[in-house]
Amino acid sequence: MVPHLTTALKGPLLDLERRFLSEQPAIERWFRTQWLEHTIPFYTSVDLRNSGFKLAPVDTNLFPGGFNNLNPDFWPLCVQAAQSAIEKICPEARGVLVIPENHTRNQYYLQNVAQLTQILRQAGLKVRIGSLLPEITQPTAMQLPNGGSLTLEPIQRKGNRLGMADGFDPCVVLLNNDLSAGVPDILKNLEQNVMPPLEAGWTTRRKSKHFAAYDRVADEFAKLLEIDPWLINPYFAMCGEVDFHARTGEECLAAQVDTVLRQIRVKYAEYGVKEDPFVIVKADAGTYGMGIMTVKDPSEVRDLNRKQRNKMAVVKEGMQVSDVLIQEGVYTFEDINGAVAEPVIYMVDHFVVGGFYRVHTSRGVDENLNAPGMSFSPLAFESCCAFPNPDCAPDDTPNRFYAYGVVGRLAMLAAAVELAEMQQ
Amino acid sequence: MVPHLTTALKGPLLDLERRFLSEQPAIERWFRTQWLEHTIPFYTSVDLRNSGFKLAPVDTNLFPGGFNNLNPDFWPLCVQAAQSAIEKICPEARGVLVIPENHTRNQYYLQNVAQLTQILRQAGLKVRIGSLLPEITQPTAMQLPNGGSLTLEPIQRKGNRLGMADGFDPCVVLLNNDLSAGVPDILKNLEQNVMPPLEAGWTTRRKSKHFAAYDRVADEFAKLLEIDPWLINPYFAMCGEVDFHARTGEECLAAQVDTVLRQIRVKYAEYGVKEDPFVIVKADAGTYGMGIMTVKDPSEVRDLNRKQRNKMAVVKEGMQVSDVLIQEGVYTFEDINGAVAEPVIYMVDHFVVGGFYRVHTSRGVDENLNAPGMSFSPLAFESCCAFPNPDCAPDDTPNRFYAYGVVGRLAMLAAAVELAEMQQ
Repeated sequence: MVPHLTTALKGPLLDLERRFLSEQPAIERWFRTQWLEHTIPFYTSVDLRNSGFKLAPVDTNLFPGGFNNLNPDFWPLCVQAAQSAIEKICPEARGVLVIPENHTRNQYYLQNVAQLTQILRQAGLKVRIGSLLPEITQPTAMQLPNGGSLTLEPIQRKGNRLGMADGFDPCVVLLNNDLSAGVPDILKNLEQNVMPPLEAGWTTRRKSKHFAAYDRVADEFAKLLEIDPWLINPYFAMCGEVDFHARTGEECLAAQVDTVLRQIRVKYAEYGVKEDPFVIVKADAGTYGMGIMTVKDPSEVRDLNRKQRNKMAVVKEGMQVSDVLIQEGVYTFEDINGAVAEPVIYMVDHFVVGGFYRVHTSRGVDENLNAPGMSFSPLAFESCCAFPNPDCAPDDTPNRFYAYGVVGRLAMLAAAVELAEMQQ
Repeated sequence: MVPHLTTALKGPLLDLERRFLSEQPAIERWFRTQWLEHTIPFYTSVDLRNSGFKLAPVDTNLFPGGFNNLNPDFWPLCVQAAQSAIEKICPEARGVLVIPENHTRNQYYLQNVAQLTQILRQAGLKVRIGSLLPEITQPTAMQLPNGGSLTLEPIQRKGNRLGMADGFDPCVVLLNNDLSAGVPDILKNLEQNVMPPLEAGWTTRRKSKHFAAYDRVADEFAKLLEIDPWLINPYFAMCGEVDFHARTGEECLAAQVDTVLRQIRVKYAEYGVKEDPFVIVKADAGTYGMGIMTVKDPSEVRDLNRKQRNKMAVVKEGMQVSDVLIQEGVYTFEDINGAVAEPVIYMVDHFVVGGFYRVHTSRGVDENLNAPGMSFSPLAFESCCAFPNPDCAPDDTPNRFYAYGVVGRLAMLAAAVELAEMQQ
C-alpha cells in the first residue's frame, strides 16, 4: 500500500513519476555508469519527504538501524546485495566483526543488529558482535522482544587488528555505530578493512557536505531527465560557530533562514504551491533528531527562550552544536489513516532492498519525524522498489516505490561522492 | 516443501548437507574467489538428481527456459541478479535483443520468454524479441495461456549489427536459443556483445567437455570440504564416431558402458548401496532429452532394434548423433505424493535465484525426466536456496535447498571454465 497523498497539488509529482517510468532504461544505465566511477557505501538508509509537488531526501544515514523494519519477503534481496558488496570490497573475507551502537536498552535497535547479523550470516560470513561498552567484559546474551537473543562480546585489540579473546580474527569490521561520541582509540589505524570508513562517522561527517554533493548529483540527474532539480532537491545553507547557549551566531542563522525561505517562496510561486514555506534547523553533524527546529520566520531563531536553546544546544552523546544546517522543509503530505508517513529507503551496496514508512499520529506535516522520544510505527513497504510497472498509473504502488528507490539511490550516490572527497 | 526421500540409504546425503552447512562461510568465500577468476555465464539452469547417497548435476543448460516456473516471490532476486550481470558485462547497455527458440507453438516456452523479458525490463533495459523464423516478417503478437501476450519481431542486420526496422539498435544480444540447428549466418561476427557467446550453442558445445571441467571443479571443492568428490560428481565416458543407423561404434559404446558400470559398482559397494548401477547414454551435443537411453548392461547397446536406433540417431532439429556421452545414472529418490521429482536450479549471473521440481507421475527413478513428450508439473521451490538455517536439521527445507544451490553453482562454474577453454 502507498499512503494517501493529501495535498491537492500533486501534479508535479505525477509528472516526475511519469518521467522516471518512461526514462527507466536511461536512469538505470546512468546509475550503472555511476557505480563504476564511485566507491559505494556498504549500506545506506535515506529519509525521504513527499509533498506531492516534491520528492526529496532530507537525511542520509551511513550506519542504518531499522533492518528489522523491512519486509521479511525481501530479506533475500538484502542477502544477495550483501554478497555483492562483500565480493567487491573484501572477497577474501571469512569473518566480520559488527560494532553496534551502545544502546543496549533499546530493544528495537538490538533487533536491527540481530537482523543485520542474520543477513551477513546468510551471505556466508562468520559474524560476531563486538561491543564498545566497557561493562561488556564477557559474552552477554541480550533477550529480544521477538523471542530471539543476541550475544554482545568484548573486543580485543592485538597490534593493529581487532578480534576476540578466543582467537576470532575478522577480515572486516562493519560499523553500525555512527561515532557521534568521537572515534574510540580502539578503532583507529586498524589494518582490517573498516566499513563504512571512520570518516563516515559524525565526528568528521557534515550534512552540509553531503547536501553539497547531492546538489551536484541532483543537477546531473535532472539534466539527464530534463527536469527542474528543485523537484528532488531541498535548498540548504549553513552557519558555522553557532553557540545557542552563548547566543553567538544568531544573526547568521536568521540571515540564512531568511535566504532559504526566499528561495522556497520563488519556487512555491512558480509551481502554485499555497503552503507556507518553512525550514528545518538542525545540527550539521549528528543524528537521532536531537536539536531540530521547524522555522517559518527568521525572527523565530532570534528570540529563543532558555528551553529552546537547551534543546538545540545538545545533540546525541553530548556533542556541542557549533555548525548548523538550515534545510528547506519539505511537507509530508503522505498520510496513512490520518497519520503522517515518511518513507525511509534502505540500500545494501547500490541495490535498493526495501524500506518502510515512519507513521506518526501525533506529529504535523511540517515536523521532523525522526525526533527524540518519537515512537513511530514502522510500516514495511510491500514492494522492493525495484519493480516499476509501466502498465500501471505513475502513482500506483510499484511505480511510487520505484520513484522512492531512484531518489534514495541519488542520495546514496551523493554520500559516495562526499566520502571520496573526505578521504582525499 | 522438500520432496520425501524414499531411499533407506540417505546417510551420505545427510552428512554432505551437514558439511555444507557447517562450512558455509568457507564455501561462500571459495565461490567469491572463483567469481573473480572466471567469466560467469549470464544465466544457467542445472538439472540435479538426488539419490539420498549422492547429489549431482546431470545437465547444465546455458540457454535456460522455464523462468516462468520459478516462484514469483523470488522474481526480485532475478531482477537484482540481472542488474548485477549487466553491470559487469555491459554497463553501457540500453537495449537488449532477445533471440528465443523457434518453438512458437510451445506456449509454456513463450511464457518463459515473457518472464525473461519482464525481468530484463524491470532491471532497466529496453527489451525486444527478435525471431529467427522467416515467417515472422512483421511484429506478431502471440497470446499466452496466462492471458498476457508476447510480440515477436523480425530482425534486421545492418553491417555487423543486429537491430530492427524501426531503428532499435541494441547494445546486447541475449540468446535464449541453444543453436542446435547450427549458428545462423545472421548471428555470426556481430560487433554487439552476444550473451552467452555463440560457442555455448550445441553446434560447438559438448557435454563431455562440460563434465571434464566439472571433474576439476568438483575435485577442488571436495578437497576444500574434505569429502569424496563422487558424492557430487557422476562418472562419465564418451565415444566419438557413433552412427546408430550404420551400427558403427557399438563396440566402443559397449566397452565404455561397461567401464562406467564397473566404476559405479565399486562406489556402490563402498557406500553399501543396494540398487543396480545404471548409465544414461545420450548425445554429447544437443538437448531436449531426445536420443536418451537408460542402460544397465553393456549388451543392451549392442543389440538395438530399428526403433531404438531411430530414437537414438535423431536429436533436436535433425542433428546427426556422432559423439555419445555415457554418464553414470543417478537415481532420483525424491518423491512428491508418489511421483518422481527432479530439482532444477536457476542462476542469473552467479546468484542462485530459485528453482523448481520436475514432477512426473509416469516415469521411473532411473529415467531421464527431461525427455520428449514429457509433461512434467513444475513445482516452484519455496526457498530461494540462499538461506541456510543452521538451527534446522540438515535436510530441512532451507538447508536441502542450500545444498542444491551449492551443487548448482559448482556446475555453473564448470560451464564458465568450459566456455573459457572453448574461446581460447
